[in-house]
Amino acid sequence: MTSNNPPARANPAVVIVGGGFAGLQAAKALSGEPLDVILLDRNNYHLFQPLLYQVATAGLGPEDISYPLRAILRGYGNVAFRMADVCGVDLAGRRVLTDGGAISYDYLLLAVGAETSFFGLESVAANAVGLKNLADALTLRNHILRMFELASREQDPAIRRELLTFVVAGGGATGVESAGGLAELVHLVLAKDYPELDFAEVSLILLEGGDRLLLALPASLAAYAARALRKMRVEIRFRSRVAGFDSRTITLADGAAIAARTIVWAAGVKAAALIATLGVPADRLGRAIVAETLQLPGHPEVFVAGDAACREQDGGPLPMIAPVAVQQAILAAANIAALAAGRQPAALVYKDPGTLATIGRSTAVAAIGRWRFAGFTAWLLWLVIHLIRLVGFRNRFIVTINWAWDYFFYERAIRLILRI
Amino acid sequence: MTSNNPPARANPAVVIVGGGFAGLQAAKALSGEPLDVILLDRNNYHLFQPLLYQVATAGLGPEDISYPLRAILRGYGNVAFRMADVCGVDLAGRRVLTDGGAISYDYLLLAVGAETSFFGLESVAANAVGLKNLADALTLRNHILRMFELASREQDPAIRRELLTFVVAGGGATGVESAGGLAELVHLVLAKDYPELDFAEVSLILLEGGDRLLLALPASLAAYAARALRKMRVEIRFRSRVAGFDSRTITLADGAAIAARTIVWAAGVKAAALIATLGVPADRLGRAIVAETLQLPGHPEVFVAGDAACREQDGGPLPMIAPVAVQQAILAAANIAALAAGRQPAALVYKDPGTLATIGRSTAVAAIGRWRFAGFTAWLLWLVIHLIRLVGFRNRFIVTINWAWDYFFYERAIRLILRI
Repeated sequence: MTSNNPPARANPAVVIVGGGFAGLQAAKALSGEPLDVILLDRNNYHLFQPLLYQVATAGLGPEDISYPLRAILRGYGNVAFRMADVCGVDLAGRRVLTDGGAISYDYLLLAVGAETSFFGLESVAANAVGLKNLADALTLRNHILRMFELASREQDPAIRRELLTFVVAGGGATGVESAGGLAELVHLVLAKDYPELDFAEVSLILLEGGDRLLLALPASLAAYAARALRKMRVEIRFRSRVAGFDSRTITLADGAAIAARTIVWAAGVKAAALIATLGVPADRLGRAIVAETLQLPGHPEVFVAGDAACREQDGGPLPMIAPVAVQQAILAAANIAALAAGRQPAALVYKDPGTLATIGRSTAVAAIGRWRFAGFTAWLLWLVIHLIRLVGFRNRFIVTINWAWDYFFYERAIRLILRI
Repeated sequence: MTSNNPPARANPAVVIVGGGFAGLQAAKALSGEPLDVILLDRNNYHLFQPLLYQVATAGLGPEDISYPLRAILRGYGNVAFRMADVCGVDLAGRRVLTDGGAISYDYLLLAVGAETSFFGLESVAANAVGLKNLADALTLRNHILRMFELASREQDPAIRRELLTFVVAGGGATGVESAGGLAELVHLVLAKDYPELDFAEVSLILLEGGDRLLLALPASLAAYAARALRKMRVEIRFRSRVAGFDSRTITLADGAAIAARTIVWAAGVKAAALIATLGVPADRLGRAIVAETLQLPGHPEVFVAGDAACREQDGGPLPMIAPVAVQQAILAAANIAALAAGRQPAALVYKDPGTLATIGRSTAVAAIGRWRFAGFTAWLLWLVIHLIRLVGFRNRFIVTINWAWDYFFYERAIRLILRI
């Protein structure tokens, strides 16, 4: 492994690992500071994860929710990008170890995010598909559409039903949005594409281990979401957990079985594996436990922000969601700039901007402060917020067109089975 | 293998193999006829192949130039689609053999198209990438962008030059369009993305075996194209043929060598492999030699149209281009309908609508009848014709936006390295 560090610099070196919400926000916040910042990511693009389920359900293309990191960072003179797989951190030597050599830092921000957790269920890990990256979303899109093609030429009704049974595991926002997106794809679009199929043979099942959906939202909104999904012909089973999946039969923890070929796994995430290699205290989701300044205990030059950080507030850990990642990143960047300038770092005070989840056409739920919205207003709010947050004006424009198109024509233009 | 045929029907069964320009045109032409038509394709989408090089050079996404075949065929009551890999034809038993069972026909149209030909050069086949399908285009896009990422962290100038040398083999329309698209991606877009690279180290080389480009166009237009490419910093080498490529060194037929990691292979195509399995007379490109009615000699119920058919006119075989495919498909469909109605099939008279090739921004060449265009007029013509021919209003709309965007902002929004 060779060292790829540029020659001696005047400014302290900041390395940010991860170009997601947290890493990108921190890079932007550090632009213009007297610091030499390098942002590392294994991909060359920033991914707008909240819309991944729309790629999986053929509503958007992968290009619509991704934006090249180099293009985003063009304007920031002191921020460079390098595409690299980070395989470890030499905390004592202050070096990040990558597939392209080691990179030294004076300050490090780990914004490595989360990955799918199958809770050690190996058969599920082998046969279900998560929803954490573009490969997941395209694999799901290909798989779902392929099931319909196979069903359309299948003579055996039992096998046809198995092909046409789609299970979403997990009743959080990702599970609810995926189940809703899938229901619209199936009953509004594919029903027109497959006149040879009887769509009464299709089963869409949402499994939730607890006894309500959307724990992050008030119970009344969760009940609204459940009613809306049922209207869209999604069967919801509470107190149901997946225990195994051999690609044709799903076994539940209570011993029941479902003949199905598809599990969309929205039941669990954990911090990216890099955190476990650091040898620092972590919570049960693998998140590094950080100080209120987001510093790693014993390593004041190392910060962790976003899904990979565990920080408690108001008696519980902050959730693994974009607003937490963004607020933590802004604080971590400010604290790095403060340390470099010889000032004291500040403590995190997370301000909850509210929670939103969309279910389908004109149907969403939102809790913002004391306000509760359900239906069209919440959906419009969801739409506008997601469009504003998307990086790149072109992406916003194309996504608006795609959504308008699908809304008015009951279409999903992107339903291609793409082999690569 | 089981038979998947529906129960006895009143109408003759027509099977069309291939959903490209020829197959899709024939399916549309047969709609409304007293025939039961099944269109088979290994993919679930129609691909607009003329714009594949734009996917490879990050100007368009794969979703923009593809359209679901089932969506296209929705309006045609007597035309069904089935996604299937066709592995053979039982000409005597009048059955098409697929991965989903055999399908019987009364009339068969083989519109199976073409695939990349490496002329038996195994090392080139293993390391170069053709441009015949979406997987090719995405592989190329990923590869080209990855070379820049690797170069940006490479210290050895010799290796850096090797990473930054891109060779396009073949000076026909695909080669010229790919070289032009690549030059614009590199010098207009990536030059802004990689401030750490010296773009004088980039080499773009177009290799042509003969001594001029664009044989399908008049010499004056070919010379214009060569001048335009050189202005875009593409080096053109005539009388140069690739003999081998071990992924780091390209060996030419005259013994010269080029240190490079990339060959975009636009030097040859041949008929799809299915034709060779039929045991019928074929030309040196593997195309089935057909009668003037496009019937297979000895099998009047079997037609071949498009790139997989060899039909001579005016002393030479018709070229493997979209206008030939479309005109042949219209005739083949009319002849199938005629035979089914007890009438005589008609003979093909191909009318050349002219030839167009684009080189880059505001730069194209066109020969239509006695007219010759070069520059902005030809480019506008190319733009309008390609937009009109794209299937799906949404695709036309999105492609227009992408092109306008790239034109005004010197951008390529889709430059993502996408792993799946």
